This record gives sequence, C-alpha cells and structure tokens, in this order.
Amino acid sequence: MRDFLPAEKARRERVLAVIRERYRVHGFDEIETPVMEEYSRLHAGIGGDNEKLAYNVLKRGLDAEAIRAAADDPASLTDLGLRYDLTVPLARFYATNRGRLPAVFRSIQIAPVWRAERPQKGRYRQFVQCDIDIIGDPSPRAEAELIVATLDTLDAMGLDGGSVRINDRRVLDWMLDSFGFGVEERPGVLITVDKLDKLGPEGIVAELRDRGASPAAVDAFEAFLRRPMTLEYNPYGERQIRKALPEGAPDDVVADLVGIGHAVAAARAATPGATAGDEGLADIPVVFDPFLVRGMGYYTGTIFELAHPSVEYSLGGGGRYDGMIGRFLGQDAPAVGFSIGFERIVDLIAEQTDAAAPAVVLVHDRDVPEGELLAHKAALVRQGSRVRLEQRTKNLKALLERAAADGYTAFATVGAGAATAALEVKPLG
Amino acid sequence: MRDFLPAEKARRERVLAVIRERYRVHGFDEIETPVMEEYSRLHAGIGGDNEKLAYNVLKRGLDAEAIRAAADDPASLTDLGLRYDLTVPLARFYATNRGRLPAVFRSIQIAPVWRAERPQKGRYRQFVQCDIDIIGDPSPRAEAELIVATLDTLDAMGLDGGSVRINDRRVLDWMLDSFGFGVEERPGVLITVDKLDKLGPEGIVAELRDRGASPAAVDAFEAFLRRPMTLEYNPYGERQIRKALPEGAPDDVVADLVGIGHAVAAARAATPGATAGDEGLADIPVVFDPFLVRGMGYYTGTIFELAHPSVEYSLGGGGRYDGMIGRFLGQDAPAVGFSIGFERIVDLIAEQTDAAAPAVVLVHDRDVPEGELLAHKAALVRQGSRVRLEQRTKNLKALLERAAADGYTAFATVGAGAATAALEVKPLG
Repeated sequence: MRDFLPAEKARRERVLAVIRERYRVHGFDEIETPVMEEYSRLHAGIGGDNEKLAYNVLKRGLDAEAIRAAADDPASLTDLGLRYDLTVPLARFYATNRGRLPAVFRSIQIAPVWRAERPQKGRYRQFVQCDIDIIGDPSPRAEAELIVATLDTLDAMGLDGGSVRINDRRVLDWMLDSFGFGVEERPGVLITVDKLDKLGPEGIVAELRDRGASPAAVDAFEAFLRRPMTLEYNPYGERQIRKALPEGAPDDVVADLVGIGHAVAAARAATPGATAGDEGLADIPVVFDPFLVRGMGYYTGTIFELAHPSVEYSLGGGGRYDGMIGRFLGQDAPAVGFSIGFERIVDLIAEQTDAAAPAVVLVHDRDVPEGELLAHKAALVRQGSRVRLEQRTKNLKALLERAAADGYTAFATVGAGAATAALEVKPLG
Repeated sequence: MRDFLPAEKARRERVLAVIRERYRVHGFDEIETPVMEEYSRLHAGIGGDNEKLAYNVLKRGLDAEAIRAAADDPASLTDLGLRYDLTVPLARFYATNRGRLPAVFRSIQIAPVWRAERPQKGRYRQFVQCDIDIIGDPSPRAEAELIVATLDTLDAMGLDGGSVRINDRRVLDWMLDSFGFGVEERPGVLITVDKLDKLGPEGIVAELRDRGASPAAVDAFEAFLRRPMTLEYNPYGERQIRKALPEGAPDDVVADLVGIGHAVAAARAATPGATAGDEGLADIPVVFDPFLVRGMGYYTGTIFELAHPSVEYSLGGGGRYDGMIGRFLGQDAPAVGFSIGFERIVDLIAEQTDAAAPAVVLVHDRDVPEGELLAHKAALVRQGSRVRLEQRTKNLKALLERAAADGYTAFATVGAGAATAALEVKPLG
C-alpha cells in the first residue's frame, strides 16, 4: 500500500478527470459503491482466485466464547470484506438499484480494490480499478460503444494509437470442439492456449501433450497451427476472421464479430450512411486474435484486450458476461465490460506542468506582517494564480528548485521593509 | 453505507472538483494515504472515542490454535484497520514523508473514513471527510491562510456568506482558571460549556452544579454570564475580544486572535500595505466566541467552526494541535487544520445542470444498424455533446423524462428507414 505525495496525486487526479470526462461524453454514468461488501457476496464464486485474496473485516462485539467457537469456523469471525474487484459490487449495485437506472445502463466505476497478495515489485495491495460496463444490451452495438469510447479516452490521455484485440469465447469453444477436445478438458486446454504469446506454437503443443490432452485433438490443433498462412491481420473483416479459423466457423458468431468492426469503423468515420466494405475496415484499430483467451471463467461471448504500441503488456481487457448479473438479479441481464488498467496507464502518462495556469511561490522574510503577506497572496489568487508562501531560507536556490519540482512556474520576494511595494514576479528556472 | 447513483455521484464529483481546485490555488497540495492503517497506530489514543468505532481487519492465515488463543486477546486477531478519521493518517504520512515535503506543508485530503456507528438517520458508516492542514507554521498566518482559503472555497461552491467562529483553548483555560475551576475538573466543565447553545446560561450553570464543580467557581462563572453587556460582535478586534472576556485576558493570546483577524481582513481586501484598524475589521466574516469549545482533546491553541446562514449546524471545524504530529515524528511540528463537512455541504448544493454542455439522448428504433447509430453518436460527440443511446419504448415521454432527470438537455430520433438522414436535435422538456 502506498502514500501518494502531491505531484503523484495531482497526476492521478488529472488522469482520472480525463477518464471521467470522456466516458461521460460517451453516455456512461459514474457510480460509487461502498468499499465493504457482505462476506457471503464476496465469496459466492464470482471472484475466482481473487476471493482467496480478500481482506475480511472482523465482526464487532465478538466475545471470548464466540472467538473460541470460531476456531472450527473462521468465517464466523467476519461479516464484511473489502472488495477485490469492481464486478461483484456492480452486480450487487445493479440488483439493488435496477428500477432507478435506464433500460440500458452504461456504468463507469473508478475506485480502489484490495488484494492480500504477497509483496512483489509493481504489485500493490490497494490499487485503483476502472471498469466500464454496459448492462442490458445483448447486441454487438454494446461492444462497439465500449471500444469506441475506450480508444477515444486513450487518445484524450495522449496515448494515441491504441488498439483492441478481439475474440469470442464461442469461437474458442467451437474451435476446440472441432479439433476433438472433450468438454471437460477444455478449461485446462484454454489455460495452455493462453500462453501462446509466451511459449509459441511448439511450446503449447508440448504442454498440451504433457497435460495428457486427447492426442488426436492435439494432433489436429498442431496441424492447424502449422498450416501455411499469411499472418496478415488487416483489413479486419469476415474474410480475415474466417482465414484465421478452421473451416466452418459458426456464422452467427462471425457475424457478431464483423458487426462490431463495422460499427467501430462507422463511429470513427462519424459518417452515418456510409457503408463500410472490407476495405473500409482496413484502418480500424481492431485485430481478430483467435487465440485470445482472458482468464475469468464468467465470459460468455466476446473477449478483448487493450494494447498500446509503447508497451508489451495489455492496458486492460474485458468481455461479455451475460450470465452473471442475471444470477444476482434473478432475471436475464446481458452485460459486457472493460476493465482498464488505471495504474499502468498512470505510469505511462508523462508528468505535465500546466503551463497555462501560473503558479507563484511567494518567498518572504520572517518578519513580514501576516496581513501584508496574505494580501499579496490574495491579490495573486484573484489574478488566477496558484500561490504558495515560503519563508526565505539560506539556500534560496534549493527552495526554488523544490517549488519548481512541485509545478510552480514563477516566484516573487517580499521583504520586511518593502512589504507594501508592488511585487515583481519572475519566472522560475 | 450507501450506493451513489449517477446523479448523486456526478454532484459529489462536481463539489470535489471545486474544493480541489480552490485549495490548490491557495497553495494546498492534495495527498492520499491507504485506506488501511496499522491497528496499533489507529489505537494509540489520538482518535479519542472514534477508536472504539474502528473496523478492524482480520489477520490472514490464522489457524485454529491462533483463533482459540485470541479468546483472551481479541486484538491478536487483527493487524490492520480502516481509518476512522484523516488526522491519524496525516500524522503517519508526515512522519514517513517529511523529507520530501516543503518546510511548511499545506495538505488537503478528501477521502472516505469508516465508523461502526449504530445505524441512525443521516449518519453513515462510510462517509467522506475533507481535511485541510498546515504543518510547520507556528504563526497565526497559518490560521488566516486556512480561513481565507476555506471561505473562498465556500464562495466558489455558491455558498456565499459563510463565517468562522473562533476561540482559543488557552483563552478557555485561562478563563476557567480565573473563575477558580481546578485543573482536574476543567475537562468536565468544558463538556458542559460546549452545550451553551443548547442549554442556555441557566442550563449550563445548573448542570455545572449537578456535576459538583467547585461552587465558588460556578458562582463566579454565573456572575460573568449575567454581567450587563451588549451582544455586539462586530467589529472583530481587540476591543471586542477583551469585552467578551473577564478582565485581564493574556496579551499574547489576544494578540494572536487579533492578528488572525487583521490578516483575514488584509487578504479579503487584497490591498497590501493598507493597515486595518478596528474599523477595517467590521466586515470580516470572523466572530470571536469565548465559549466555543470543540470536542477533540488534542487542540492546543485556536479552535474554529465554519458556519453558514442557511443552516444551524456547523459546516466544519478545526483548530491548532501543536503537540500531536510531533509525537509521531519525535520533533516539534506545529499544526493547524480544518475539517470541512463534505457530506453536509453536498446536501446544501443544489442540483445543477451544466447548461453550457449539451447532452443529447439518441432515441433509436430497434432495427437501426449498429454502424448508423454509432456514427450518429460519434458525430455528436465530436461536436462536444454528451450522448446516450436509448432504444425507443412505447412510453417515449417517460423515457425522455428520465433522461432529463439525468441531466440530458436535448434529444433526436433515428428511425430504421431514415437512418442516413441528418439528425434533428430538439430541446428536452
């Protein structure tokens, strides 16, 4: 867990403000849920491995007897826990507030989550997640809205050139079925397929054999991976999707994937009525990847990952999870969401000094009367400056350097004698 | 604990943005600390009664034996807790990061805190506190900077006309001493004095007698309360402060209180060099109140409370607490702070629709192709609108009313047939 000092906190708030503003413009509404949720809800199986990492809150008012009894039932010590993701709270929020939300609810949550992970470089036990979800729209329009809004947000943060890798759980399932993998072995096979980037084709074939996956299915998979093909991912579209898959991919799933691409292309062109043929999709930042898996078990349709040329790791990911919210709600509620890696994005965004807003350090002698000083400060504030008072120290240079590091752009000095004189504001550095 | 739905969340974020921006301009730096602090630090006595209300976090990996052993030592079940205020974390933050902060550190924290209070109307177990503190400046300039920045922030939120009641713990102590109350009975006497607004002079005199306070001291106090005086609080200044107190109030404390008033007056006039006589203080929004107490035990000097004519309760309060941070740090660190009641202020701020930023609901038929719709949306977004898609329902009126409640100001319809036609955007309501 970390303290955020002024410069870092200001940077984080600037990034948050951009995210808020861009998704808001795209019709997403920000919500907030309490940090603590009921223990039983946090441990209902939706959170996957993260459930084990939850921080649990001690019940209030436990007596010695209750504590002794808990030796055989540790869960009885706790009734609340800190959320480990924003998906469980969203499902609970939606079930609670359904009647007060629009039919299609586009939500954004930006909030900290907690996981009791082993200390590790670059991993924190408290970190901010940023989830954007659309609940209530079963059509590929929802995926397209999410992708368009997310790429626009990246652009607004100065991270132009982002792209989205896309696949569909139904494609994966059909593909594994067509190779001959049995239903029970598929989850394990997917865990291996997910390592394609790391292990390469030979590596995953070897691991599948080690795993004891059906030999004939592994052979079929290997033959498919070795088939002669041009690794030409553009233009995105039906032809490209079918070429990347075994023969006979299901038409409805392919149509959904193509539809998403067309909608993204139309939105980026912003010209209603122009029909995009495959050529029109040549320059959309969407890439079909038949081997994209995504870890969480609850995805039911499309899955995607956000990439940016400046980094090798993903900046976020998500997918369609039509079953989960409905389970909480007791009625169908299709949903698709994106979780963008706020912490990773903050690290990518360069420190920016807002040169447009002047910031003045007022260096004063010890004995300048309070009223004089505060009047000088107030006058500068009225002119639109940010102002910090600093008592003069022997090492004025060090003092001004620190102020510059905190984003101050100018300084003025106030001496005891000349307190009533007009200030001479000089640029810093 | 509460969910915040879109309209409420947006209102909270708007208020937060104003607070952030105004204090920043006045030279305050925002920081953030982790939600959890060490159990031992949360229970070191600084938190007063709030320590008992802390939510404690269960240690990870406790086995049956450890749990059984904890029956006699419940604190051994926990190592972390949720913060119940922002003062304990600030003291810890300052001790940790001292070397990387300016000599006088002006901090602002806006963050949730948790208290396991009994459920009660208007009280929440998770709520946002907003603390503004100046560490490292022993002079009354710090008080003046705090007051000026805070009143400016209230103004910027549309709450003009705020004022600050001020007193000094040293005044209270001297006054009780001059009446003849012993050192040990003074904390109890202060608890009663704090109820003056509620009980009136007769009420507190009666309660002091019930309490068994020194009879002669209570008599002296009663005589003082009954003295003939004009309840004329303005102009703020030495004459008025001395008139409100028994004869012989300590000069240094009175000088500090007067100095704060002069500095506030100078800042509000923003005319360096103009000396404010008592007349110049006639219109400053600072009121001396010799019976202002403030609950927390750690105050050592000035104490203040923020008032606004629209409400009877206070909108925040604070004071000087020169001893506390030093205790954590192991060296002197004078400090003065204000905690403004964010939740109370949010309730006072009227819902505002930002009329300058157009927000359009795009009502579409079910079968409009995705690409058409998203292109229309993207075109409006590019023009600077906020846009929400809504599928047409039988009750179009209800749909538009809900959108208006969410801050949307205009709508347009897209039919399947006329999808490529130009949109006609009409005002809502």
